[in-house]
Amino acid sequence: MSQSASQKLGKASVRLEKEVYIYSSASVVGKKEGEGPLGLLFDVVGEDDLFGCDTWEEAESSLQKNAVNLALEKAGLKPEDITFAFAGDLLGQSIATSFGIASFGIPLLGVYGACSTCGESLALGAMSVAGGYADRVVCVTSSHFASAEKEFRFPLEYGNQRPLSATWTVTGSGAFVLSGENTDKKARARISGVTVGKIVDYGLKDSMNMGACMAPAAASTLEQHFIDYESQPKDYDKIITGDLGVVGQTVLIDLLREKGYDISAVHMDCGIEIFDAGAQDTHAGGSGCGCSAVTLSAYILKQLQEGNWKKVLFLPTGALLSKTSFNEGQSVPGIAHALVLEKID
Amino acid sequence: MSQSASQKLGKASVRLEKEVYIYSSASVVGKKEGEGPLGLLFDVVGEDDLFGCDTWEEAESSLQKNAVNLALEKAGLKPEDITFAFAGDLLGQSIATSFGIASFGIPLLGVYGACSTCGESLALGAMSVAGGYADRVVCVTSSHFASAEKEFRFPLEYGNQRPLSATWTVTGSGAFVLSGENTDKKARARISGVTVGKIVDYGLKDSMNMGACMAPAAASTLEQHFIDYESQPKDYDKIITGDLGVVGQTVLIDLLREKGYDISAVHMDCGIEIFDAGAQDTHAGGSGCGCSAVTLSAYILKQLQEGNWKKVLFLPTGALLSKTSFNEGQSVPGIAHALVLEKID
Repeated sequence: MSQSASQKLGKASVRLEKEVYIYSSASVVGKKEGEGPLGLLFDVVGEDDLFGCDTWEEAESSLQKNAVNLALEKAGLKPEDITFAFAGDLLGQSIATSFGIASFGIPLLGVYGACSTCGESLALGAMSVAGGYADRVVCVTSSHFASAEKEFRFPLEYGNQRPLSATWTVTGSGAFVLSGENTDKKARARISGVTVGKIVDYGLKDSMNMGACMAPAAASTLEQHFIDYESQPKDYDKIITGDLGVVGQTVLIDLLREKGYDISAVHMDCGIEIFDAGAQDTHAGGSGCGCSAVTLSAYILKQLQEGNWKKVLFLPTGALLSKTSFNEGQSVPGIAHALVLEKID
Repeated sequence: MSQSASQKLGKASVRLEKEVYIYSSASVVGKKEGEGPLGLLFDVVGEDDLFGCDTWEEAESSLQKNAVNLALEKAGLKPEDITFAFAGDLLGQSIATSFGIASFGIPLLGVYGACSTCGESLALGAMSVAGGYADRVVCVTSSHFASAEKEFRFPLEYGNQRPLSATWTVTGSGAFVLSGENTDKKARARISGVTVGKIVDYGLKDSMNMGACMAPAAASTLEQHFIDYESQPKDYDKIITGDLGVVGQTVLIDLLREKGYDISAVHMDCGIEIFDAGAQDTHAGGSGCGCSAVTLSAYILKQLQEGNWKKVLFLPTGALLSKTSFNEGQSVPGIAHALVLEKID
């Protein structure tokens, strides 16, 4: 272990002793996201959610392609400068990814963790860079409201009703170039550690209340992180979940209180930040792989870069269901992976 | 880089300088696979393909659970001895994995690479162990004939016809415990290197001829591997693809010949080995994440352990399609990841 630049920490964490930088990033979102509270911060806002394509799935693929293109452009890099891509999305067999980033010709490691995929891709990407396996990697994830409704619930044409506990899948993609070098001092933040989550299943079956389904997984990963790092909520300027929404936030804060951790003063949820729930009729908040990814790129990294925050815990949350598992009466288990993101000194 | 125990090699490869052992493994298959040429080598052969479950998806989940249980048992390990699980399957949102291995409580990194998933999970697992991020990991993948037909084509009840170029999805799961230590000298083989594949799309759209769709990706990864490693086909006792079948095998050998590599003397395909195509009516061969995984566990590792082979290149191959992408007229791109597996001296 002493030879290695990184080390296993506690039960489920890794401390990256070698510097891993989020060297550049990009966010591409749909019209509705552009009209939300973070609207002015996104790099690209589409005029309509088809983005010039014929199908919702192609539109989602184009989001990933645009996000990767832009992240590379900002970094002054070409696809051939990137060793590996870590990428995924919510669609069956990750087709948004397959048809989105194939043309770059970057060796691809496909990942799936539902809406926690952004966290998983950054975790594996950071480990690859710190381990000396890759000079630079790109991590990209996406979701699209219309392709997700079709995949998990009903085609939009059905006009189905949504309960207040439901979240609204974010149309967007966030891409991140990770590098071991901070050339030109352009990097936005650094990744100093990772806590990998396990599947947590409280037996909830309500796919229209995914916040509640995912909150136990977020609580589990956070508790494990605090134990592995011997840290406390107050050690972070923010603890940021991916897409719990207002229902899941309450559950998470309550669950962690029972375990002796009070995160209420520092908790933030990307799903709550990205929409104005009242004005935009999004109910419990935003969700999807894209939700945490675009919020990280546009908002969280900006705070770290400007020095408003020094250290945050970023924790995308995923609900592990499919239309088939739902129709067969299965529960909706959750998973969440945490990253320690730090301001560059 | 000099501090690291491993190194990036060429464009898409990693040489693992620190030892990574396949410490134990297990294979669980269905009735048809048990009746095939490798039948006597599998650890568990089910009496029927529901494995006592109510649905095909639950049955596939039970395959993963049984395979992991058995691999742990053979290693004399408990779930809490495992740092991370790398797991995936072919179903939408990887539900065979979510409901298969949740109960172990092992921190999970979900992977998706269609039928190349076994290779991807072993590649990332090996990098995690070599990097000092994990003491031990478990890598598990599965496929199931009936759940795959339902997911990608038609429910079995339709009794649809299959062209001769079609492959038969293997019902099976293979699990592998990777470790940095070879305690008791029980390990079956070691992983010394990895070549990560990129998506290759020749524009083929015939989902009933996946061998031809995947062969260009296999050729691309093999060519890249030979370049990165400065090696030749003759340097390996076998070069083993996942599930190209007889059609894909011909395409692969032809494509590589055009690039100046003749693998015909050492090529083997798990999909060709696992069934007796004539007697078992499986047409071009076996396929699915489970195909390469169970063949690796039951047959390939046995050859390495017994010293019949010293070094092989193991290259699971994946076809990146979904029912939606197929119905929307998209092509079927392929991907393949290669692992260098060596006999333990």
